[in-house]
Amino acid sequence: MSSIYVVYHSGYGHTKRIAQAVAEGARAELIAIDAEGNVPAQAWEQLAAADAIVLGTPTYMGGPSWQFKCFADASSKAWGTQQWRDKLFAGFTNSASMNGDKAVTMQYLVTFAMQHGGLWVGMGMKASNTKAAQRSDINYVGAFSGLHTTTPADAGVDEIPQGDLDTARAFGQRVAQAAALLHKG
Amino acid sequence: MSSIYVVYHSGYGHTKRIAQAVAEGARAELIAIDAEGNVPAQAWEQLAAADAIVLGTPTYMGGPSWQFKCFADASSKAWGTQQWRDKLFAGFTNSASMNGDKAVTMQYLVTFAMQHGGLWVGMGMKASNTKAAQRSDINYVGAFSGLHTTTPADAGVDEIPQGDLDTARAFGQRVAQAAALLHKG
Amino acid sequence: MSSIYVVYHSGYGHTKRIAQAVAEGARAELIAIDAEGNVPAQAWEQLAAADAIVLGTPTYMGGPSWQFKCFADASSKAWGTQQWRDKLFAGFTNSASMNGDKAVTMQYLVTFAMQHGGLWVGMGMKASNTKAAQRSDINYVGAFSGLHTTTPADAGVDEIPQGDLDTARAFGQRVAQAAALLHKG
Amino acid sequence: MSSIYVVYHSGYGHTKRIAQAVAEGARAELIAIDAEGNVPAQAWEQLAAADAIVLGTPTYMGGPSWQFKCFADASSKAWGTQQWRDKLFAGFTNSASMNGDKAVTMQYLVTFAMQHGGLWVGMGMKASNTKAAQRSDINYVGAFSGLHTTTPADAGVDEIPQGDLDTARAFGQRVAQAAALLHKG
Repeated sequence: MSSIYVVYHSGYGHTKRIAQAVAEGARAELIAIDAEGNVPAQAWEQLAAADAIVLGTPTYMGGPSWQFKCFADASSKAWGTQQWRDKLFAGFTNSASMNGDKAVTMQYLVTFAMQHGGLWVGMGMKASNTKAAQRSDINYVGAFSGLHTTTPADAGVDEIPQGDLDTARAFGQRVAQAAALLHKG
Repeated sequence: MSSIYVVYHSGYGHTKRIAQAVAEGARAELIAIDAEGNVPAQAWEQLAAADAIVLGTPTYMGGPSWQFKCFADASSKAWGTQQWRDKLFAGFTNSASMNGDKAVTMQYLVTFAMQHGGLWVGMGMKASNTKAAQRSDINYVGAFSGLHTTTPADAGVDEIPQGDLDTARAFGQRVAQAAALLHKG
Repeated sequence: MSSIYVVYHSGYGHTKRIAQAVAEGARAELIAIDAEGNVPAQAWEQLAAADAIVLGTPTYMGGPSWQFKCFADASSKAWGTQQWRDKLFAGFTNSASMNGDKAVTMQYLVTFAMQHGGLWVGMGMKASNTKAAQRSDINYVGAFSGLHTTTPADAGVDEIPQGDLDTARAFGQRVAQAAALLHKG
Repeated sequence: MSSIYVVYHSGYGHTKRIAQAVAEGARAELIAIDAEGNVPAQAWEQLAAADAIVLGTPTYMGGPSWQFKCFADASSKAWGTQQWRDKLFAGFTNSASMNGDKAVTMQYLVTFAMQHGGLWVGMGMKASNTKAAQRSDINYVGAFSGLHTTTPADAGVDEIPQGDLDTARAFGQRVAQAAALLHKG
């Protein structure tokens, strides 16, 4: 089985809940970035040994949270020795608006993975986008480069749309499947 | 009053309908890019004389339609002599999925305007993104750099969500207001 | 005369030097984001009163520095009351590689300005890109959506290419010219 | 050995020359998109059977050429049945300016691959970006998400910088190595 880590920042708990669903689907372990932008000391060793790294962050003001970016900047040490080269990467982001510039955050996550010399895997699934589409459908939010979830601005952690949690789980499975393709050798 | 043109390509009529709503809000004239990627001969003179240019295209396979791009490539003549420098630009795009990579198309439109030495104006409005939000609200689709509309894959031209048409009109008004700021001198 | 502020973060002094050149060209005042991602308390009032805001950050690991992002996240207060709506925005970024994903940082800066309901102005100039082009030419680095400067990884603050400093000054003038267009009323 | 195709459009022969260097490095076969945006009829079958697809286009007016986009739009048939799912994708683009918004084209290529459910691999190498860096170095142009080459606006096909051709060959080898990782099972 592939060794997969989900490294994420969550400001108010929503992205954490989504990270859990992704990790469930991917049979991955979670690494939390804290409110100061730090990860536990052993996280760098875990990530260096991982087959796949899933990056998660809320979208704040059109990009990843500063705490996530703080983690990204700190990864320049791993970059220096190309520790993450050839690993599989994927990403997810949550915001209040249907679009809400989540795609800009996602492009950042892709760019970050490419700087590290990784491979990227996206959703690998179509969107639910016909007249009959329901908010509870898989990939109703309709992204492809990574998982986009939409949680209303005034929704609690327990009010994340179920369809998005289901999509998060399916996305985790997708990442695990791609990691298996890469590391079956 | 500012002279504003909406130049757009529409594959199946949906983007045309949205272009009309934008033009209504902006009191703009329409220029259609045809199925071969061409505009009427006089369009280049009209655009050269415009105060503001609003760019519209469906999002196909994650970017502007090839016909829109054909128009963009042909504008390299206007670019050569910097005819469009200092004009105001704005953009809109329609696709079937809620996100559907419309933001990637929008970033292309911004880039295109910047190559021409223009200024860019976006939505200038917040999104409808609370638990009480309705699909019929203004900017439910929730974009900021330009107008995003979402028309289900199997919806006819008469089935474009009314909220998106209302948002298109409000966006047109926003463009006209910004053009007035720029050209009141 | 327009009121223009250049708000920037600089990790090692290079982006600060470029910010100074931009400010010189734009006759703007400087606001520094510190090593913890904070700006002086009065900065928020200054920015609220500004006609134009120029955003500057190094590109680290494919995006703005976390300190810049910390400032961006803190601006959500100004966003809440749309204090920055209708202002003119522009941006610049510095990195060691010729490309170095500076364009990804620039797209973030555009996105951020659009969330705030602003207008965006880019370089408004062509690139120096013929066989005879010299590194010391204006816009040799060849960006359009904003100023890109390239300072070698081992270059000191006094070794920023002169052509890039000249380009920074010209870019500042461009921003001032656009601000004048907008606020001549 | 993996089956790799390089599908590209070239307006004036420069991108074709770079495609050849990539194909040499990757031991790939070439598929040319013609001046009308079409590929030979058998190309669709070849691509359906490929392990990896490398996408190449000039950057014109801030994005892929319309002919490349015409090919991309035509691939919606392959998308409909998810024929390209799980394939490896990579991309390259050429323009006259050092940056020249090549990164915007590259983001489009990534997006396109993600719509098709593919995996993406980038350069997997650092940039040559110290004071001692030479134009003839590998990855002097300094991109990571894919290959960026810079050919002066007035340079003939025989005047593409040798360093960029060498980088193209190294990039092709990188793609072949990643394809081998994926398909060794």
